[in-house]
Amino acid sequence: MSDDWLKKVNWSEDGLVCAIAQDAISGRVLMVAWMNREALKLTFQKSEAVYWSRSRKKLWHKGEESGHIQKVKQIRLDCDSDVILLQIEQQGGIACHTGRESCFYKELANGVWVEKDVVLKNPEEIYRKPENES
Amino acid sequence: MSDDWLKKVNWSEDGLVCAIAQDAISGRVLMVAWMNREALKLTFQKSEAVYWSRSRKKLWHKGEESGHIQKVKQIRLDCDSDVILLQIEQQGGIACHTGRESCFYKELANGVWVEKDVVLKNPEEIYRKPENES
Repeated sequence: MSDDWLKKVNWSEDGLVCAIAQDAISGRVLMVAWMNREALKLTFQKSEAVYWSRSRKKLWHKGEESGHIQKVKQIRLDCDSDVILLQIEQQGGIACHTGRESCFYKELANGVWVEKDVVLKNPEEIYRKPENES
Repeated sequence: MSDDWLKKVNWSEDGLVCAIAQDAISGRVLMVAWMNREALKLTFQKSEAVYWSRSRKKLWHKGEESGHIQKVKQIRLDCDSDVILLQIEQQGGIACHTGRESCFYKELANGVWVEKDVVLKNPEEIYRKPENES
């Protein structure tokens, strides 16, 4: 199959594109990470989210250590072609490296960020080594 | 009120943070744009989305020309504090400058990006001048 679709993405100067993972059922936004060309291609081929870890400078098959694989149901691109939106099924129900369902657990209330969501699993029990990537 | 909450945001080297606007009712992800410190502060104060236009290099009160104001119901921050998630009420039901509900109207199907969503209103009827920002 042609890779022409990859050329339509408006890659940043660093060769990356921002990717949002949204729960395909609940609609909750779970996390945001980055993909390079290879990561997006693999995401499409595997139907599992593969990101580019900017801190580790390597491909990051989400869930490779935690088991919290993201099954990809749909891949969308925005009007400027510089943001990817994945509809996913989150294995284990935990997307965040803190052990929460979503990375967006801090809410602004009266001018203070308040942690609103519970930790579902202790990160030390989730990872053999930290998976905090972005 | 103290601005300490603004200091908790992990601003990029350019002084920006990525912001996702999600429909507070339907859960649909509508658009992604950028905010600087002033934009985020104004968003909080007005309870209306204010972004930073990277192309025009100025504050962009979303809907200032189109009338498609985004009423902000909730502001969240992710674990790395470098992405904002807004729950919004989209005035006019159109977030995208193309006249569609959402900017994420292109879906990958069999290795081709397919435009899935209808244009609800001709952009020429929406804007006095183009509002294509990112």
